[in-house]
Amino acid sequence: VLHTVGIVGLGLIGGSLAKALRGRVPRLIGVDPRVRAPELIDADGPLSECDLVVLAAPLSRLPALVAPTARRMRPDATLMDVASVKGPVFDAVRKLRRRVNFVSGHPMAGTERRGFENARADLFQNRPFLLIPGPTWGRRTAQLAERFVRAIGARPVWLDTPQEHDLAMALVSHLPHALAAALFKTAGSARPLAGPSFQDATRVSHSPPRAVADFMLSNRKFLLKAIGRFEGSLRELKAALRRGRRSEFLALLKRFST
Amino acid sequence: VLHTVGIVGLGLIGGSLAKALRGRVPRLIGVDPRVRAPELIDADGPLSECDLVVLAAPLSRLPALVAPTARRMRPDATLMDVASVKGPVFDAVRKLRRRVNFVSGHPMAGTERRGFENARADLFQNRPFLLIPGPTWGRRTAQLAERFVRAIGARPVWLDTPQEHDLAMALVSHLPHALAAALFKTAGSARPLAGPSFQDATRVSHSPPRAVADFMLSNRKFLLKAIGRFEGSLRELKAALRRGRRSEFLALLKRFST
Repeated sequence: VLHTVGIVGLGLIGGSLAKALRGRVPRLIGVDPRVRAPELIDADGPLSECDLVVLAAPLSRLPALVAPTARRMRPDATLMDVASVKGPVFDAVRKLRRRVNFVSGHPMAGTERRGFENARADLFQNRPFLLIPGPTWGRRTAQLAERFVRAIGARPVWLDTPQEHDLAMALVSHLPHALAAALFKTAGSARPLAGPSFQDATRVSHSPPRAVADFMLSNRKFLLKAIGRFEGSLRELKAALRRGRRSEFLALLKRFST
Repeated sequence: VLHTVGIVGLGLIGGSLAKALRGRVPRLIGVDPRVRAPELIDADGPLSECDLVVLAAPLSRLPALVAPTARRMRPDATLMDVASVKGPVFDAVRKLRRRVNFVSGHPMAGTERRGFENARADLFQNRPFLLIPGPTWGRRTAQLAERFVRAIGARPVWLDTPQEHDLAMALVSHLPHALAAALFKTAGSARPLAGPSFQDATRVSHSPPRAVADFMLSNRKFLLKAIGRFEGSLRELKAALRRGRRSEFLALLKRFST
């Protein structure tokens, strides 16, 4: 049953989860050292009363919260994280002394803004919410996770492993950030002449560097793999460009864009 | 004097130039094998009557139009092109048998749409219009070019050489297109999980492949140079990522984004 839900960390994501759940579960407990939001917290009760505890702390601090949170939970309760990189969280779960029902989540939603003051109840509306089975879990945990995802208005999308998740995020999120940073640097003094193609391509290079450093370093292994694959694609394009045969180059561009 | 202006090629750019000039010069002559736009053309007169002829044909056909157009013009008239790559046009001008007043232009404006039917009088409003001195020209040509740029509502920005122009365009326009294509290809089966950072970064990979092949191949030399510089920046990022020292990596990200 999804009766009492605890949320640890009330930043943009945790705060939006709390606002989205408000009125949809009988009892909601929010925990954040920095935020006091009494209207969101039905009771200052301990995590031991929760059926589900969601870890929504910043990526750099989240893995260290797994053990102390699990220790406070009932043995039949479920633990979920919403980190954008899964390797370190799964490592922390595998190191737990006792078996915990664990499922990992990643809402495909966000804004440039941060913090509880920008949290919105509709942030997850109709967005995919990735779910990954934990190392220890059962069918009840899967059902509970899906009920939670639907309660916040999102669509559950299951992936098989944390590795599959982290490689996919490296390819579609962390690699674009790395390329944008390198492109912005490369353009140098030509930047004042830039038009919309450059603005689009480098938009994410204006993301807060600390957050970027956190997810890139947390996902270092798969990001390095993604960069390697990208370098291969770029070398292919470069070779066809150097040969300069129009029909061959056109065929490559068409193949690359489908 | 800017009395009679001829525009050769009435696609998106040429058509927009014609619409922007309409009523701002005493006489306007439009030439395009594919378009009949009687409301834009005050006279079907020959190019020999023009004070300024603007070549606005597609990039792949523009250099070949330099000689036949120049041959039809008065010796004191000015020739301008609005190609997005300057090397091939300047080569064609240097090969002319007789001296021609030539100035090269590149409006920093455009849309995803193409063709005369999408041409807009306000396309160049307040946009930079790059100008480059031709190999043969004088102060009168410069004044005429500036008068033309102001007549269409744009801001003249002078560059020194076609090489400076083509390297800058390689860095801020053609390189982003190349990276977007390689990124789209690299992401492969992970694309359905993509969020806004990927959408932004790959937007230009949906540009018409023929147009992309044209400007990349026309600017091959400088695009290869730009890709080489980019690979250097990416290698730097990769090395810092591999070392994994947070403070060093954060410093690199900050340096790259300023």
